[in-house]
Amino acid sequence: MPAAAVGDAVDGIQTPALVVDLDAMQRNLARMADFARRHHIKLRPHAKMHKSAVIAKLQMAAGAVGVCVQKLSEAEALAAGGVDDIFISNEVMAPAKLDRVAQLATRIRLAIAVDSVQGVERLARAAAAQSASIDVFVEVEVGQGRCGVSPAAAGALAQQVVSHGLRFAGLQAYHGSAQHVRDASQREAAIRHAIAAARAAQASVTAVGITCPLVTGAGTGSFPFEAGSGLYGELQPGSYLFMDADYALNQPAPGAPAFEQALFVKSQVISRGSAHAVVDAGHKSHAVDSGLPRVWGCDLEFANGGDEHGILRPRGDALPALGDTVWLVPGHCDPTVNLHDAYVVVSGGLERGSVCAVWPVDARGCVT
Amino acid sequence: MPAAAVGDAVDGIQTPALVVDLDAMQRNLARMADFARRHHIKLRPHAKMHKSAVIAKLQMAAGAVGVCVQKLSEAEALAAGGVDDIFISNEVMAPAKLDRVAQLATRIRLAIAVDSVQGVERLARAAAAQSASIDVFVEVEVGQGRCGVSPAAAGALAQQVVSHGLRFAGLQAYHGSAQHVRDASQREAAIRHAIAAARAAQASVTAVGITCPLVTGAGTGSFPFEAGSGLYGELQPGSYLFMDADYALNQPAPGAPAFEQALFVKSQVISRGSAHAVVDAGHKSHAVDSGLPRVWGCDLEFANGGDEHGILRPRGDALPALGDTVWLVPGHCDPTVNLHDAYVVVSGGLERGSVCAVWPVDARGCVT
Repeated sequence: MPAAAVGDAVDGIQTPALVVDLDAMQRNLARMADFARRHHIKLRPHAKMHKSAVIAKLQMAAGAVGVCVQKLSEAEALAAGGVDDIFISNEVMAPAKLDRVAQLATRIRLAIAVDSVQGVERLARAAAAQSASIDVFVEVEVGQGRCGVSPAAAGALAQQVVSHGLRFAGLQAYHGSAQHVRDASQREAAIRHAIAAARAAQASVTAVGITCPLVTGAGTGSFPFEAGSGLYGELQPGSYLFMDADYALNQPAPGAPAFEQALFVKSQVISRGSAHAVVDAGHKSHAVDSGLPRVWGCDLEFANGGDEHGILRPRGDALPALGDTVWLVPGHCDPTVNLHDAYVVVSGGLERGSVCAVWPVDARGCVT
Repeated sequence: MPAAAVGDAVDGIQTPALVVDLDAMQRNLARMADFARRHHIKLRPHAKMHKSAVIAKLQMAAGAVGVCVQKLSEAEALAAGGVDDIFISNEVMAPAKLDRVAQLATRIRLAIAVDSVQGVERLARAAAAQSASIDVFVEVEVGQGRCGVSPAAAGALAQQVVSHGLRFAGLQAYHGSAQHVRDASQREAAIRHAIAAARAAQASVTAVGITCPLVTGAGTGSFPFEAGSGLYGELQPGSYLFMDADYALNQPAPGAPAFEQALFVKSQVISRGSAHAVVDAGHKSHAVDSGLPRVWGCDLEFANGGDEHGILRPRGDALPALGDTVWLVPGHCDPTVNLHDAYVVVSGGLERGSVCAVWPVDARGCVT
């Protein structure tokens, strides 16, 4: 049963519910599109964050060239919703999945990342079987210590891409963990290292006689640095659209537009003690990998109440009463969105607004 | 696209996937049913953990009197799947939801918890409007500091239940945080306090001339203590069926059957460095509120790789190769199950077994 219907007042949204402040989201969307335009750089927002075809198409209508995802099944879900230009910015190794990658590439413009010869071989086999055309990015390890080849090895892997008859589209160079470094100058230092690594990878590619059409990467915490590098041609931020309690703790990067909080979990007080209140939202309503949610609009402490509850304690403000609404700002937007089947979209503000749409989270649970 | 089809070999399950070892699950199910029978105590397993109508019905076929849930929408989803005796062991305050509670109570045997006069009033109004018959439990705060009235206030609230024309069914007395106290004797001490609080609440009820038909509560970490109390008439464990990495760290309570790990996330190595491997499962495949997953069957360190990745480092065993399968034991079963749309059910073991069923997680995302 959906938490709300179009036309409902905000008061009528059943809790807990994932609520988008549409006005704030649209301002964030326009600010990032404007940034990319002013910096003459392509924007390919990361749809792993919102998992919504409606939102991906709004981003593309505002100038984005397409979107990124992390998983094949996310790409399939968004393609089914009409998104026609998708980059799977991650490695896929299972032959059965690579067959689906190739099938999808016959229907939309599709790109994928590789970081191993075995990955290139398997992808080439699947692509050949379907006569599919796929853009292939070599992923470079630029500081996070996760996927990607070393910068010096990028040229050799690009050669493998080309020699297997695939289209080498450029370098995927994203430093995920640097996004959350609180101090902007420390973050810049980490990204400076990432940019140097990406530049070395590009040199390794050109040294083997292959042109590198594009370097792509960057996130909400760092994109002004990559945009100013003269190297990156495309930005992949995701969280800027909704923001979260974790990003709110970041000192903004110089030159970044101010993004507003646009994603909330609406909750309700279902129990009251003398010194605490209990709301009906816990780990099953908001992800806690980047910390607990923050209470929005008043100064209350949110303590862990388990899977289905949150415990509020007074701080600057007094506790809400039994039955009251409490708005929560999730610690981390991406995995919070992934808990919900739908967005309840509100225009006119959280106080007096009303529900103007209910958008499915198309790729919810699409982890394969 | 489901991760597997019935008849597939385990090798063919696409990753990441939520996999149940059916043989282990059935042994766990039988062990708990047998425990309850031997102790002449009712068993009402907590379905907030598995969210599956198929599993709830297997539990009831083995002797459980019904199941618990935490949310109305969970109850609705399980009722739609044929589960006909459900206790919402939590408070519901929204009048629109209480109307649905009352509607559901006209179709199945339904119980619910209350801990406020306002909650009783609203519930009574909804029940009267539908001529619905609902069992009402007064929740008692027995040590967790979350929902529930103080033991001394239980009698007065039971009077409110009765005077509002509702059926007083007994006391809900569950100490959630005590379940995870590692040392069994420290855990017993916490539960001894909870039992004393529940006993005081029962005395407060009988002191106002109301019979207390049942005291219900207990979890996988503590149920032998409540079963031996002479007070509790019903046990509500959930995790025993699947277990998880967090419960594996508990020293078992004396008298508890040995439960086996029956829930896994199947993952695959998609990237290899010289000193690490990257699997395709992260926060969107397993919950991390109770810690990171453990690698099953070999001695490797699992490090946080973000929403879509896990990073493995060698410990006692060498790293797996690119493309290899890695089985993960989630830190916490309940919120991990809630990330997935389906269980891939394997019989014959994880090594050589095959997929014998794919069960929907009926109440996935049912947080309202």
